[in-house]
Amino acid sequence: MKKVVIHDPTLRDGQHAVRHQLGTAALRRYAQAADAAGIPVVEVGHGNGLGASSLQVGQAAVGDDEMLSTVREALRRSRMGVFMLPGWGTSADLRRAIAHGADVIRIGVHATETSLAERHLGVLRDAGAEAHCVLMMSHMASPEELAEHAARAVGYGAQAVGIMDSAGHFLPPDVTARITAIVTAVGTTPVIFHGHNNLGMAVANSVAAADAGALIIDGCARGFGAGAGNTQLEVLVPVLERSGFATGIDLYALLDAADLAERELMPTPPVTASMSIVSGLAGVFSGFKHRVVELSAPAGVDPRDVFFELGRRQAIAGQEDLIVDVVAELSARPAIG
Amino acid sequence: MKKVVIHDPTLRDGQHAVRHQLGTAALRRYAQAADAAGIPVVEVGHGNGLGASSLQVGQAAVGDDEMLSTVREALRRSRMGVFMLPGWGTSADLRRAIAHGADVIRIGVHATETSLAERHLGVLRDAGAEAHCVLMMSHMASPEELAEHAARAVGYGAQAVGIMDSAGHFLPPDVTARITAIVTAVGTTPVIFHGHNNLGMAVANSVAAADAGALIIDGCARGFGAGAGNTQLEVLVPVLERSGFATGIDLYALLDAADLAERELMPTPPVTASMSIVSGLAGVFSGFKHRVVELSAPAGVDPRDVFFELGRRQAIAGQEDLIVDVVAELSARPAIG
Repeated sequence: MKKVVIHDPTLRDGQHAVRHQLGTAALRRYAQAADAAGIPVVEVGHGNGLGASSLQVGQAAVGDDEMLSTVREALRRSRMGVFMLPGWGTSADLRRAIAHGADVIRIGVHATETSLAERHLGVLRDAGAEAHCVLMMSHMASPEELAEHAARAVGYGAQAVGIMDSAGHFLPPDVTARITAIVTAVGTTPVIFHGHNNLGMAVANSVAAADAGALIIDGCARGFGAGAGNTQLEVLVPVLERSGFATGIDLYALLDAADLAERELMPTPPVTASMSIVSGLAGVFSGFKHRVVELSAPAGVDPRDVFFELGRRQAIAGQEDLIVDVVAELSARPAIG
Repeated sequence: MKKVVIHDPTLRDGQHAVRHQLGTAALRRYAQAADAAGIPVVEVGHGNGLGASSLQVGQAAVGDDEMLSTVREALRRSRMGVFMLPGWGTSADLRRAIAHGADVIRIGVHATETSLAERHLGVLRDAGAEAHCVLMMSHMASPEELAEHAARAVGYGAQAVGIMDSAGHFLPPDVTARITAIVTAVGTTPVIFHGHNNLGMAVANSVAAADAGALIIDGCARGFGAGAGNTQLEVLVPVLERSGFATGIDLYALLDAADLAERELMPTPPVTASMSIVSGLAGVFSGFKHRVVELSAPAGVDPRDVFFELGRRQAIAGQEDLIVDVVAELSARPAIG
């Protein structure tokens, strides 16, 4: 049976669904439950990663140092993961995370901006940490571009490289094409897939990724994450097992961890609501939703039109100003009919 | 572009999630919204179909006659569908439904019990109604058995025939094998697929069915249904369109209908909770959940073990007595460790 390594960002990506307000008790208890299930990597942090807690993207309830020490102490068998976006976090943040015992450190960059990860991947290589590089919003790049950037990240020192379907836009054939291209380009370097469920395809996409040779697959308990959420971990694991992949995870303990997550981490599990479907179809970061809805209503514009127009303009996170432009243009158009 | 016909049992299968308590105002408003979106068939009724309202499976808030006349009046373009399980409903119920203007009448039978549908399919053929036959719990039969029973149903007069993944057990390759076998067996007769989301695969399975030649695909707004719910209709439609199938449905009006359904039909949208995952893996009807949990706790038995044992014994709806036996046997086993 082929193996896959499950990477669990419940305590990092899930933070987006609760404005980064997970407390230390919740972090500890979920980490212990995940550890008991034998989940290989438990990722923790602010939703936007190391150093990101701020007024702009939200201040976390717990600082990076306390999050890392809490989870480190809770884990016996699982390795601890962290995430960092260059610009939000710095080399100093990486070194602090290593000092806290982070085992796996992921640098996230836009799909075609691998060069932004070069310096930090170098820092991690010199420090001897396990460095991953993930290409976000990967539906905006072709399989060939992703393969080129993945190979570049390996050249910078990444020991695993892969893609995030940040907008939840992919269908399985899209994933197959991209993972196949990346696996071909990076040879024996483990390849990562991280899905979102905007089109109800997160589990199916993850199986397609594993079938195409991805070795590291991400999932969150109950899909905990913003909007439609991430790949639902406790569904993903038994489905991968049935599909011929060994995860080494105990099913009942995993279900227990997911039940705990539903009770203690989230107000309600993610729902695939209409605006999440639209953002997935449009290929737009679902974090735009609040602003899109807020700006569309007073302008008499359909927020769904705004999402599709943002998709046509290939808007990415950080370009929230585009929302204002699109709403203004759509509201200026003469009404039809 | 190939065509698929969307069949929407929100107002029938969704009833299971609210103990058949949908009122006439909710029925009318959803039917109008579905009609406005251009959904070809809107199915309505008690969750277990015509004639099923009873103390045993739950008394509906609204009787069959009133449900049918309410929805009939609300529909302009959409055709009205009804469902019947032989034994719960009778030929008289079928005739009443036809008198109420039901356009599409589905007879549901266990996967390998097509003979139970013979008489009712004959009644429908003689009445000139469009008769469908759906094979339930279809994961319990091989592709060859399903093909044989589907062909038999066509012989009895079914004008469309297909399978329900009643336990939410299938992965896409399972669906591909079964739909392919059925399409081969029944030739030009339209083939139906009806999914459930216990393993997060309802949309992916439905696309696999369409790819394998299924022409009629079921989906419910927000997946409205018991446990993990049905295939989420407003996700299914755009994903089918992106996958090369024309549905003729207006996306925005469909999303509006789903938003209305979330507000007016359900307390909360379905969640894929741990026990739903277990029932899907075990291949057991999720309607067993309440009894399994209720009987397991006082006996000190893990309800998940009960589900997997019921799966090994191929328990089907109506065999709730088996739960008592399994719980008793598991509780009598010496504890390990």
